Amino acid sequence: MPVGERESRIAWSRITEPEDARAHQLVAARGAEAALAAVLDGSASGAERYQPRIETLDIEQDLRLVARLRARVLVPGDDEWPDGLDDLEVPPHCLWVRGPEHLRDVCERSAAVVGARSATQYGESTANEIASGLCERRFTVVSGAAFGIDGAAHRGALAVEGCTVAVLAGGVERPYPDAHRGLLEKIVATGAVVSEVPPGCAPTRWRFLKRNRLIAAVTRGTVVVEAGLRSGSRSTAREATKLARVVAAVPGPVTSMVSAGCHELIRCGEAQLVTDAGEVAELLGDLGTDLAPVKRGPEWPEDGLGEVESVVWAALPVRSAAGVAAMAVRTALAEREVLACLGRLQLKGLATHDGEGWRRPPRERAGRGR
Amino acid sequence: MPVGERESRIAWSRITEPEDARAHQLVAARGAEAALAAVLDGSASGAERYQPRIETLDIEQDLRLVARLRARVLVPGDDEWPDGLDDLEVPPHCLWVRGPEHLRDVCERSAAVVGARSATQYGESTANEIASGLCERRFTVVSGAAFGIDGAAHRGALAVEGCTVAVLAGGVERPYPDAHRGLLEKIVATGAVVSEVPPGCAPTRWRFLKRNRLIAAVTRGTVVVEAGLRSGSRSTAREATKLARVVAAVPGPVTSMVSAGCHELIRCGEAQLVTDAGEVAELLGDLGTDLAPVKRGPEWPEDGLGEVESVVWAALPVRSAAGVAAMAVRTALAEREVLACLGRLQLKGLATHDGEGWRRPPRERAGRGR
Repeated sequence: MPVGERESRIAWSRITEPEDARAHQLVAARGAEAALAAVLDGSASGAERYQPRIETLDIEQDLRLVARLRARVLVPGDDEWPDGLDDLEVPPHCLWVRGPEHLRDVCERSAAVVGARSATQYGESTANEIASGLCERRFTVVSGAAFGIDGAAHRGALAVEGCTVAVLAGGVERPYPDAHRGLLEKIVATGAVVSEVPPGCAPTRWRFLKRNRLIAAVTRGTVVVEAGLRSGSRSTAREATKLARVVAAVPGPVTSMVSAGCHELIRCGEAQLVTDAGEVAELLGDLGTDLAPVKRGPEWPEDGLGEVESVVWAALPVRSAAGVAAMAVRTALAEREVLACLGRLQLKGLATHDGEGWRRPPRERAGRGR
Repeated sequence: MPVGERESRIAWSRITEPEDARAHQLVAARGAEAALAAVLDGSASGAERYQPRIETLDIEQDLRLVARLRARVLVPGDDEWPDGLDDLEVPPHCLWVRGPEHLRDVCERSAAVVGARSATQYGESTANEIASGLCERRFTVVSGAAFGIDGAAHRGALAVEGCTVAVLAGGVERPYPDAHRGLLEKIVATGAVVSEVPPGCAPTRWRFLKRNRLIAAVTRGTVVVEAGLRSGSRSTAREATKLARVVAAVPGPVTSMVSAGCHELIRCGEAQLVTDAGEVAELLGDLGTDLAPVKRGPEWPEDGLGEVESVVWAALPVRSAAGVAAMAVRTALAEREVLACLGRLQLKGLATHDGEGWRRPPRERAGRGR
């Protein structure tokens, strides 16, 4: 039987399903090793729940497996243990990790980019661009390696040689979905692939649900790119809200069922609307240094005009020319007022006059309608 | 020269541009007729502003014009004068109206549906559907008869024989844009076409800007369907906010420049996100009677299960069958717990067993993955 806290935590991850509150209480109260001993000798209350799997335990084999996969096992207190996990009500007993990145370091400035498996082309390319943009702003992109949005997010990160972390619902040695075998190999080679369930475990529905809380916990916030009304990424958003992380959602056409979940999140005030990586970075980044540029339309020279000047400018002919008297009728202003305004507009380069009268300067004509 | 308040207000609408604060103060302080007399005899301060146009006044001709167009002129105090106009800092002197509907009555339960002239197919069809849906919910759809979203909104209302009101920047006899001549004729025949500038006036840039405040004022709220970052519909939204009306915006693809203004409105908290007429009606409608149905995904029988039951249900095989001991290992639960759960699931029709063991009932298989 296992000796030591680390080995005991490996055992606990084998004999429990994720987010088993009773197991967490036992381990938190006595330490992993003593809690395991109490289960073995039957002295822990409710211990029979863990009996069926205890018989299958083989810690020696698990340690050999870790070595063979060039993986590592993190437990609370390790330097690499992500701080955010401690915010969970029921944190994992340990994390199984593959990949070169220092998990705590890269999660320090990270964003979850998640969404529907049945994503649209629009959703995937948006996820891809947001992930690339976040990496260019030195964020780590965390996702779940699923089809659709998750895969697009990982690929967007890899495309700019950014750091990306995949949190799996099954064992870290088991590519899921199988079509993402190559993608996961790249993440193992450059970032990190993480799971709370031991190698050999299949990604069951329960484990998918519980995996989402890890994605929410290790990141500063979660961006939902596309989500149906029943999407699993809404559960990630819910977890992120529970953990007081920022939640953002990308809008899409109201006709798209995979944007309906995003729109609901925004409508309920659960998520903030974001349209690009800059806006996500502003929400998740460091105060004052990650501000997104304010979105503006084209600026026009007449933007700064006062009310009366605007009326006169709007009434100035583009092609023909108008005298002051005609301009007074057009604007419903006194000739004196019109003349003073025209002078100010001329100083700003917005009016010109010749023998025929006043008009807009020629340069102002291009591309401008009424 | 004109006699009476109504005729004097007609004169004021001729000699001023919309939202002339000085004229409004004069009229508010002395009454329209006395204020006009004070301009004529030069005793009103700043009166020379109105001199250039006073010479062109011909009220008799205006009254003949009204009769010929089968139009009417509304002034404050008239039964048909829309209440909302009184919320404006500078209300119009009068309204020129064509069409059979009683303007105050139909504005009582109304929504502005506005947006970009350079709208997309997506935007137009969304505006169309929202307008139809609002009419089906007994709302009047108010818009500005422009190309793009405005036109689509009017058409959506007409398509379901709903009530629609066009507020123009030029005179009510002057179809603008010209391509909307037929559309405006239909609105004149069934709803109302409204302007604060007299017949014969061209729709200038200034009048367009000022027209937007009327749209905001006569409605309960404004829905912006598509808007660029510099769109005029954002000015309508700003006016609506100033007047404490509800502002809503429809999201779209983040790649669409004509949705960028909508997204900014939502991001700044100036507008609420809406995706259909039901949601607009909920925002603008009567408390308690216009609630939108809550958007839900498909509901599944296992939705109401507790945590432990969910684990057991998720672990239940679909095709093969599993014994209680195997289920205990799968779920990391005691056999006793598993058996109790399976009993409860069986009562709910979510588990079945035979000689081989436990499985999900056949009916549950269809269309369901993991």
